[in-house]
Amino acid sequence: MKAIVNVFLKEGVLDPQGKATHHALKSLGFDNVESVRIGKQIIVELKAKDKEEAIKEVSQMSETLLANTVIEDYTIEIVE
Amino acid sequence: MKAIVNVFLKEGVLDPQGKATHHALKSLGFDNVESVRIGKQIIVELKAKDKEEAIKEVSQMSETLLANTVIEDYTIEIVE
Repeated sequence: MKAIVNVFLKEGVLDPQGKATHHALKSLGFDNVESVRIGKQIIVELKAKDKEEAIKEVSQMSETLLANTVIEDYTIEIVE
Repeated sequence: MKAIVNVFLKEGVLDPQGKATHHALKSLGFDNVESVRIGKQIIVELKAKDKEEAIKEVSQMSETLLANTVIEDYTIEIVE
């Protein structure tokens, strides 16, 4: 099964990488950009009996390693 | 409008960050993991007349700055 974990900074947490990208886009002439935020997308292929088991396991991975839950939120999507 | 750009390494390009994460997950006891690949998710808020214009502008941003098209592919999704 294939799980997509999107990890992104919580609302209110400063995102210097996004800010730098926003600035760079403005320098390149993209004046319509209002904000940029940058997160990670982690694609995990794993063996699992069913979707439920996959979600459970990937949640544990996210909590322990993939996301820093103090400053980041995450979403999990099972695609196949 | 809000655009989500997913940037990921092309098939066949080595992904050391993903490999390290895979290794770390195995060390933590997640033995069912078969592979891990890591990409970026860039959320761009921009002013645009319509969806088409937004896609066109975000494509240009991706080609010039957000993705390194030699080794990376990207997808664009307009969500609102």
